Amino acid sequence: MHINTNYQNIAETYLFSEVARRLREFQAANPDAPVIKMGIGDVTRPLCKSSVEAMKKAADEMGTAEGFHGYGPEQGYDFLKEAIAAYYVKTSSVKLALNEIFISDGAKSDIGNILDIFGDDNTVVVTDPVYPVYVDTNTMAGRSVTYLPSSEENGFAPMPNGVKGDIFYLCSPNNPTGSAYTRAQLKEWVDYANSLDAIILFDSAYESFIEDKDIPRSIYEIEGARTCAIEFCSLSKTAGFTGTRCGYTVVPDDLVRDGQSLQKMWLRRQTTKFNGVSYLVQRAAEACFTEQGLAEITENIQYYKRNAAVMCTTFDELGWFYTGGHNSPYIWFKCPDNMDSWTFFDDLLKKANVVGTPGCGFGKCGEGFLRLTAFNTYENTVEAMERIKKIYK
Amino acid sequence: MHINTNYQNIAETYLFSEVARRLREFQAANPDAPVIKMGIGDVTRPLCKSSVEAMKKAADEMGTAEGFHGYGPEQGYDFLKEAIAAYYVKTSSVKLALNEIFISDGAKSDIGNILDIFGDDNTVVVTDPVYPVYVDTNTMAGRSVTYLPSSEENGFAPMPNGVKGDIFYLCSPNNPTGSAYTRAQLKEWVDYANSLDAIILFDSAYESFIEDKDIPRSIYEIEGARTCAIEFCSLSKTAGFTGTRCGYTVVPDDLVRDGQSLQKMWLRRQTTKFNGVSYLVQRAAEACFTEQGLAEITENIQYYKRNAAVMCTTFDELGWFYTGGHNSPYIWFKCPDNMDSWTFFDDLLKKANVVGTPGCGFGKCGEGFLRLTAFNTYENTVEAMERIKKIYK
Repeated sequence: MHINTNYQNIAETYLFSEVARRLREFQAANPDAPVIKMGIGDVTRPLCKSSVEAMKKAADEMGTAEGFHGYGPEQGYDFLKEAIAAYYVKTSSVKLALNEIFISDGAKSDIGNILDIFGDDNTVVVTDPVYPVYVDTNTMAGRSVTYLPSSEENGFAPMPNGVKGDIFYLCSPNNPTGSAYTRAQLKEWVDYANSLDAIILFDSAYESFIEDKDIPRSIYEIEGARTCAIEFCSLSKTAGFTGTRCGYTVVPDDLVRDGQSLQKMWLRRQTTKFNGVSYLVQRAAEACFTEQGLAEITENIQYYKRNAAVMCTTFDELGWFYTGGHNSPYIWFKCPDNMDSWTFFDDLLKKANVVGTPGCGFGKCGEGFLRLTAFNTYENTVEAMERIKKIYK
Repeated sequence: MHINTNYQNIAETYLFSEVARRLREFQAANPDAPVIKMGIGDVTRPLCKSSVEAMKKAADEMGTAEGFHGYGPEQGYDFLKEAIAAYYVKTSSVKLALNEIFISDGAKSDIGNILDIFGDDNTVVVTDPVYPVYVDTNTMAGRSVTYLPSSEENGFAPMPNGVKGDIFYLCSPNNPTGSAYTRAQLKEWVDYANSLDAIILFDSAYESFIEDKDIPRSIYEIEGARTCAIEFCSLSKTAGFTGTRCGYTVVPDDLVRDGQSLQKMWLRRQTTKFNGVSYLVQRAAEACFTEQGLAEITENIQYYKRNAAVMCTTFDELGWFYTGGHNSPYIWFKCPDNMDSWTFFDDLLKKANVVGTPGCGFGKCGEGFLRLTAFNTYENTVEAMERIKKIYK
């Protein structure tokens, strides 16, 4: 028996363990320091009431002979697909057929698993800095990855610029940089992908943070996207489902390559290697998209956005270059005095007792940047910004 | 962009759609016929009370700031791993370290996804008849599959018999045949796999139906299994979780190939392409393994086993050859008068108004056999057996 030797080519990332190590050492030496953690990439607000009630109702149903649900459709129940289709119409005027929507246990699973339906000989393009999952999942399959540099100059929203590739990963609003593509920029990407017969894997996990009218919430707002794009989204950031687990993937009817429907291939993949999402979780997700549910989850998103606004104001006052904060829970900013990421990480921890995430951990182009998130409490966010202003002004 | 062309080699299976079509036609022609469906491969009893209460409690927790759970460990919470480790000790005296246990959304997912860590050049051996997922997932990856014939002669529990291979799939108690390997038979398989440096993928989804002391409930009861076997199990049949979704996979510390720990590779696969099982579902699963929970789920299993016993008695009286029924919710029997599977399917539907699953749908060696399941109600099972006795005695 031979292993998949591609696994030996995956780069070990020590980013978060190194952050944890430095924090541990600092706290051991300074046990009374009032540390504020702003590296958190996870939501912190509780699930909305509508979801909680829906889960309890579904649990009761499952305990009765009449309400019991066994195996469901691998691609998800229609009641949830209908709710998601209606959400698309409401938020982006995009109309989807139910068979184009696939329910899953989260965007991370689908972003990894979708690669099953593509040949191993495709060239993959990611933007740098990058969400490591895009790179690692392709390395596991033996595919070569090309990095498209992001920078202050392109506002961390790089354009194709003639790059060769078969599969393009775009994440907008971006993790980790918080940058988001405008309508015109996405149109350029869609036209480019179609011209090459390439595929865009569009990660829209942060779409619910978008406020600007000029930033599309779905790539299908762009003409031509239905022939080149697969969109991944989840309720993790939209409704605080990071621990509840529910996502959805859109594979349009029009997406055909080598004469095969990618939607049919994905359906085949899912019916063979997946058995659907828990009935309870699908009911919880459905509840988020009711009028009441939407009002409740919007309240949580507004809470995080208020934090992000406080951070933007601070960096505006300091005159530091940053992306995100608007349309995103992430603020990605240039370290002052040309410090590199780890030097500033240590400086910020020591002087302000604030923990961020060094940008260099997300790729070469992240060097000299730091990421803060809006997922802490309002009080902590205000306090952290006050400290930063006082120290670095 | 090129697709994964291996998908075009997957055999389309029309088994269940053809069953549905013939049933539809029969019912259209005979609208008053009292049809009893005994092809059901899904549980029908409601979730146990302990699980329902655990889910409701977890839902309430998730609705509070203090009880909220975001991202959990991809490989599952320790509270559930500890419950599963204790279950192993109780049911099979097998001791597992927590890092050897991986929680997932079901055995089907893991059985498919585990292939990620193996090279594509391995030869795969399955028994015929076979659960189609073993074949299709390998076909998708371009691997060749060897079929090991089962038959009346080997009691549908085939032994290695010198077959060449790198990855052996064993399912015991078996789906679809209900046959189960004895301790001595499994020992032979384990020794054989170790002698070849091969891997056994052991599907024990039906372990909770085992009653005979001589049938191991876990492959790790067999000496040597820790260096050659990965075990997949789930709460689907054990606790009626087919719609709730929770399974677990055991990858022992001792499992090393090409100098690499398969456990570390699987951990890497899961942390990269998976984000863990819903906190609620993990709490529901934990509740099944408490003293109270075990008593409740055992009651459901006993219900199905009583059905199976009624079926065994019937086939004993008729003198028909069958496997399963004992240690399994499936009864796999030889069609009378040497009828082929579809001929007898039609005969049984027409004369007894009972629906089974034609054995030929699970592979060449299933021709001439039919599968019935114990998942209907007791009353329907008794009625169906009465009809069969009356017609075929």
